[in-house]
Amino acid sequence: MSHTVEILCVGTELLLGNIVNSNAQALSRELSGLGLNVLYHSVVGDNPGRLKAAVDQARKRADVIVTTGGLGPTCDDLTKQTLAECFGKKLVFHPECAQAIEAYFKRMGREMTENNLSQAYLPEDCSILDNAWGTAPGCAFQSGGAYVVMLPGPPRECLPMFKERAAPWLARLSEGVIRSRTLRVFGSTESGVEAIFRDRMNQLTNPTLAPYAKEGEVELRITAKADTAQAADALIAPVEAEVRSVLGDLVYGADVSGLEQVVLELARARGLTLGTAESCTGGLIAKRLTDIPGSACVFKGGVVSYHCEVKAGVLGVDQALLDEKGAVCAEVAEEMALGAKKALGCDLAVAVTGVAGPDPDERGNPVGLVYTALAAPDGTWVKKLDLAAPGARRDRIRTLAANHALDMARRWLEKG
Amino acid sequence: MSHTVEILCVGTELLLGNIVNSNAQALSRELSGLGLNVLYHSVVGDNPGRLKAAVDQARKRADVIVTTGGLGPTCDDLTKQTLAECFGKKLVFHPECAQAIEAYFKRMGREMTENNLSQAYLPEDCSILDNAWGTAPGCAFQSGGAYVVMLPGPPRECLPMFKERAAPWLARLSEGVIRSRTLRVFGSTESGVEAIFRDRMNQLTNPTLAPYAKEGEVELRITAKADTAQAADALIAPVEAEVRSVLGDLVYGADVSGLEQVVLELARARGLTLGTAESCTGGLIAKRLTDIPGSACVFKGGVVSYHCEVKAGVLGVDQALLDEKGAVCAEVAEEMALGAKKALGCDLAVAVTGVAGPDPDERGNPVGLVYTALAAPDGTWVKKLDLAAPGARRDRIRTLAANHALDMARRWLEKG
Repeated sequence: MSHTVEILCVGTELLLGNIVNSNAQALSRELSGLGLNVLYHSVVGDNPGRLKAAVDQARKRADVIVTTGGLGPTCDDLTKQTLAECFGKKLVFHPECAQAIEAYFKRMGREMTENNLSQAYLPEDCSILDNAWGTAPGCAFQSGGAYVVMLPGPPRECLPMFKERAAPWLARLSEGVIRSRTLRVFGSTESGVEAIFRDRMNQLTNPTLAPYAKEGEVELRITAKADTAQAADALIAPVEAEVRSVLGDLVYGADVSGLEQVVLELARARGLTLGTAESCTGGLIAKRLTDIPGSACVFKGGVVSYHCEVKAGVLGVDQALLDEKGAVCAEVAEEMALGAKKALGCDLAVAVTGVAGPDPDERGNPVGLVYTALAAPDGTWVKKLDLAAPGARRDRIRTLAANHALDMARRWLEKG
Repeated sequence: MSHTVEILCVGTELLLGNIVNSNAQALSRELSGLGLNVLYHSVVGDNPGRLKAAVDQARKRADVIVTTGGLGPTCDDLTKQTLAECFGKKLVFHPECAQAIEAYFKRMGREMTENNLSQAYLPEDCSILDNAWGTAPGCAFQSGGAYVVMLPGPPRECLPMFKERAAPWLARLSEGVIRSRTLRVFGSTESGVEAIFRDRMNQLTNPTLAPYAKEGEVELRITAKADTAQAADALIAPVEAEVRSVLGDLVYGADVSGLEQVVLELARARGLTLGTAESCTGGLIAKRLTDIPGSACVFKGGVVSYHCEVKAGVLGVDQALLDEKGAVCAEVAEEMALGAKKALGCDLAVAVTGVAGPDPDERGNPVGLVYTALAAPDGTWVKKLDLAAPGARRDRIRTLAANHALDMARRWLEKG
């Protein structure tokens, strides 16, 4: 029998709309990946009565309950107490958790307040889900026919806790192995990809094929279920080959964190170094490249030339050109890339100049007009972009501009 | 009696984690702003049986039900039918809706398929919520003690529909307004802040006071309910004053997007320009400053000096110093800040150099060792930080390092 899941998120900040429930989305994807059917999300505030009623209800309609939030040290963190009560369990002090919390504060060089030790109380007979990303441990237990997993609320703790701690615990409920492979596509829209593969997606049942919109790009996920990982991978391979043959070099990678990872790996493989010159993206490309551990092997540095005098003074862009044409034109993009290549002493430099908005620039260039450039050992290239689509605001224009610049480098590096 | 709300979102794509439930967040904010207490969010898939059960449950625990999704023309759009059934109403064809749908397709220059006219069937005796942003009209009705509002799922339709159509209809239920003010705190932990204010938080009922952990900082939110915005603000003011008097300059702002916004505003007010020199943060500070529209008034640019030769070549850091002490030391941080100030021609420059991990640097400096520096017209300052903690991975170390650098600038600017 297939298991059904309710994700129950606890936090008044969600009900006030202060934060979006990104945990519910991320956990839904992960749980679906385990072959568990998520049938309900619910959110209640930091109120024990309403939480208790929500748990009672979840037990009636699902057999796996995954909670987020309310595990912290403060007096409105009531999830453990309430769930323990619902399932007739006591809270028990776990000295090993207390030690871990104390050690955490010691390493942080901070003084631990007494209330932090309340986090070491967990339901009796539970599996502790050790929190390597914060102080509040999670826990999991089985009671009657129900499987309960409690995770902390902050997304940067919740998601790794699920992947590293809860998923192995829940694996027993999964019948067989579910594997997925995510192809990353840049240069098409979700609806464009969906239109191409609609019939295939409807035909396919194992593996399945599904598109997901990402910030400025598209993911195509192939998911297979089989008795072994090997058998699942064997189901995935022909579908991946089919997608790649249809989309060609729109597919820039599989199971990668983004264009920046692919660019770094390609450059490292070819022994080339990278640099950036950024105006409207303001450091976003450099930030994304350096998000990746080990990027220092390849990435030498960047210049954020937000003002024209930095474009001229640090990157050596011709002042007369800036005076005549302004900062947003193909020639400046090209000179920025060449200037970065020279100033930073790198083999390959990308540059971006444009109007991220919300307002047109002082020369009347419209929001969304962006030039990206690539300076390589064998030449320079410039691309003119119109990123002003309905709903494309500042952050999206910046993300798309960064993607386009990175994609220019990716395509050049792939040619070699 | 105060009204209570359940937001009930219908859509299998939410349960699969394909999209995040941004409607629930946006509607929660709007409804709270009307003085209505959102007590529950729930999500069910496109399944009439589970939707009916969810509606029945929502009626028991809330008197206002706001649904999103399932109003479209396809066969799995079942919200109207199901809600009508739950409340014993018939669906009635509304010719004026059919005309509006036909007109919409005409305007868009698209052909209308017959199934689109199913959207003109709405529950009898309802108020039509005309959809100027798409094809599916919404509706609202009162039945017994319940108030029901149905909105379309796409966020670009749902939110304007709420603001322009549903909010006026719901205004009759509003008893006063809810206002909140969020104080941003850098330099303490959530549990530290909670320990200080625990008694006050327990005493306070209107306004309430609650702490929230943010990436590398803490929020303290004060929320008040009153007949008018002015009266609510008057309840908030003394609690804000109390918090500020206790925490002093740990409070860096109220209702702001982050340290970067405060730094930009303070610099603008003083007519000073900013620049950055970043090693381990790799462009993150520049990126955060330029996230903010209008940052070009203040922010001149930055140098991401990831490699030592960029520190020496672009920022003018002494090569002998780099050879002797390496990149991670107080002297280099100071020279980076001074070099950025000079190269970028700015009044105030912040610099960061350190080890973000995952591995110690080649000189054996540990992960989390970071130096931040500030070069200002009246001197330079350097801060040594140990940001290593169990949960402090690369991204968190970088966020904290950026926060510390921005906070140095904030504190210098506030002194003026």
